[in-house]
Amino acid sequence: MKIENYLIITGIDPGTATTGWSAIKKTKKELELLDYGIIATSPKQTTGERLLKLYKEISALIKRLKPDVLVVEKLFFFKNLKTALPVSEARGVILLAAANQKIKVIELTPLQIKMGICGYGRADKQQVQKMLKEILDLEKIPKPDDAADAIAAALCGAYSLKNQ
Amino acid sequence: MKIENYLIITGIDPGTATTGWSAIKKTKKELELLDYGIIATSPKQTTGERLLKLYKEISALIKRLKPDVLVVEKLFFFKNLKTALPVSEARGVILLAAANQKIKVIELTPLQIKMGICGYGRADKQQVQKMLKEILDLEKIPKPDDAADAIAAALCGAYSLKNQ
Repeated sequence: MKIENYLIITGIDPGTATTGWSAIKKTKKELELLDYGIIATSPKQTTGERLLKLYKEISALIKRLKPDVLVVEKLFFFKNLKTALPVSEARGVILLAAANQKIKVIELTPLQIKMGICGYGRADKQQVQKMLKEILDLEKIPKPDDAADAIAAALCGAYSLKNQ
Repeated sequence: MKIENYLIITGIDPGTATTGWSAIKKTKKELELLDYGIIATSPKQTTGERLLKLYKEISALIKRLKPDVLVVEKLFFFKNLKTALPVSEARGVILLAAANQKIKVIELTPLQIKMGICGYGRADKQQVQKMLKEILDLEKIPKPDDAADAIAAALCGAYSLKNQ
């Protein structure tokens, strides 16, 4: 049981090649970015081997961060069908890892995340990243983009919990 | 080690709601349908819970059938985006289960499967099922459709191994 009154919110931006992740601590008064990074797999591996690496690393991450909720980016409208299918395969493995450790999942579309952070669904990557830096009081904009997307997902998840 | 000279080929038709599966034994002389069925999940469950059930049952199936190869239906062209994404999530979990037990995977599109079985990529479900019944010398057409699709995938996989 937690003594302190806080929530750990993990954000995930799924992909077979690169999956971004982040952890935000939410207290009554503030939001703090605890950690972030990416899980990268090699194109020399089979799809199955890449998904296995992703599954193992996400599972280890959940064990280490002990999030109260996992916020996973969800596809809704997409431009490129060839990327939508492997991203969905990665999503399947991430949702499995969460279910296997009985972690609550919130799914948010990129539109919802942009709206939540910038108040504007068509905000571009730079605008979102600038807002992240400001809201979380960071020294610099987090890199790479997949990790920044995962931070945006966690932040938007934190807002949606606030509103419940 | 196998004493007899045969291969076990498992076919999978992926889906979050229903996944069809089959096992075909391939000797030098003949193909024999060993077993087939479906894994069904409830719409009352969350996506994560459904994927967890699917993962556990596919993993158990691989342990029981000990296939030399898993033939998994692959999306390529599809009509309905709303079904393509959950099917890909289920595919991710199935490819993970295979990689976790180091089972070789062959991915075939519905077009390749129809071509392999009927010699005609635009064959309809009834034509494919009739061919299955004939080739595998079955008393009746296998039901439900998802199981029949999984048998078609395994059969086509058996053909492709023959040609190697």
